[in-house]
Amino acid sequence: MNIRLFFTPAGIGDEQINGRTAVVIDILRATTVAAVALDNGAREIIPAANLGDATSIREKLDRSTVQLGGEREGRKVEGFDLGNSPFEYDREAVENKTVILATTNGSAAILKGGEAKHCLSCAFVNLTATLDKILKIGNDVSIICAGNKGGFSLEDALCGGMLVDKLLAADNAVELDNDAAFVAQGLYHKHRENLEDALHKSDHGKYLDNLGFAKDITFCAQEDHLTICPVWQSGRLTLQE
Amino acid sequence: MNIRLFFTPAGIGDEQINGRTAVVIDILRATTVAAVALDNGAREIIPAANLGDATSIREKLDRSTVQLGGEREGRKVEGFDLGNSPFEYDREAVENKTVILATTNGSAAILKGGEAKHCLSCAFVNLTATLDKILKIGNDVSIICAGNKGGFSLEDALCGGMLVDKLLAADNAVELDNDAAFVAQGLYHKHRENLEDALHKSDHGKYLDNLGFAKDITFCAQEDHLTICPVWQSGRLTLQE
Repeated sequence: MNIRLFFTPAGIGDEQINGRTAVVIDILRATTVAAVALDNGAREIIPAANLGDATSIREKLDRSTVQLGGEREGRKVEGFDLGNSPFEYDREAVENKTVILATTNGSAAILKGGEAKHCLSCAFVNLTATLDKILKIGNDVSIICAGNKGGFSLEDALCGGMLVDKLLAADNAVELDNDAAFVAQGLYHKHRENLEDALHKSDHGKYLDNLGFAKDITFCAQEDHLTICPVWQSGRLTLQE
Repeated sequence: MNIRLFFTPAGIGDEQINGRTAVVIDILRATTVAAVALDNGAREIIPAANLGDATSIREKLDRSTVQLGGEREGRKVEGFDLGNSPFEYDREAVENKTVILATTNGSAAILKGGEAKHCLSCAFVNLTATLDKILKIGNDVSIICAGNKGGFSLEDALCGGMLVDKLLAADNAVELDNDAAFVAQGLYHKHRENLEDALHKSDHGKYLDNLGFAKDITFCAQEDHLTICPVWQSGRLTLQE
């Protein structure tokens, strides 16, 4: 099993994902939110590339069964039902609902991953569930970190590195195939004793802290809080096989 | 002095470079070539965004005073005078010549850096000369790694991390301002005892090795082989202030 990792979706060509399992990571906070929402009974999550797409998708659906969520600059968008905090995606808000998710970095990363043969949504909160799914599928893997506005994000790289580390431990046939996969594993080794602290000190962690979302960061740092893995299917993330 | 680092030019907005000193790094091999060519007497280096631009620029100049250099997939381009090996840019080839340089990653990174207030071209071969120039200018710094086709390159991150490390050692007022700057410094600490080995084992190092350019990699890993720093001025790199 061949593993590549990308710190951002920028520049990922078809040859990097064709026939492979893409694993998308946006710790703060889109893929954490995706796991939480589906665990709380959301029917599906449709990522929207931008705000215009998000409202267009909503117009085509039964309004009573939809929650429109997302953020710009970390804040809830005017006219949206929900922001991008995992605490907003509780059972009351999302059970049996379609969630349309328009976030700055995560949505684009999921859509890029959706071009691969398989696509999974991963966060610290569902890392082992994602690992199990990757091993069950058995294809080569392209880990896509969402990053931040085209640039590197520490928290996504740490989760990617943790996944790399656990894949290597789980399967003797795993081999790392690009510089970034090795670097991410090394970063994880450096910070694994204090991941939550690293998240709080990251660029985006500090930004969210300033907006009053410190408890989101603590939540997003929890390893294996959930046992589900969102899977891409026909333009949406669901828990169905 | 505030320091940011970017693993690729993708996603660098104006706010990341306005009023700052951009330092562009493409170890294998564009910024190494730039330093070598100017040290060997080239009058100036004009980076070209693509092959079409490169030939257009040549057509406007006196053919006898121009060397057209660069690569695609690491190889010299048909019809070009020179490839992208530092050994080709010797005094006989470049003295008193204008070099037009069209490389896959480095040229675009230099052009991006050229949008900043100041722009310097850095490699291991001229690291201390670049450091001195940065300190003399005194502005905040944006280190732009060229990366490879929009993705991360170990060798550029290592040189960026070395520059970060030496800036911190040189000036108490230096502060790191993004995740990538810290990560690059950590990478440098991890590999500083065997930088040449890390370059040979990097994705692009292995690729160039397969093409027969192993000695280029060894050359590009030499710290402070040269004492000059190419400076951006009106669309070209020169040694003039």
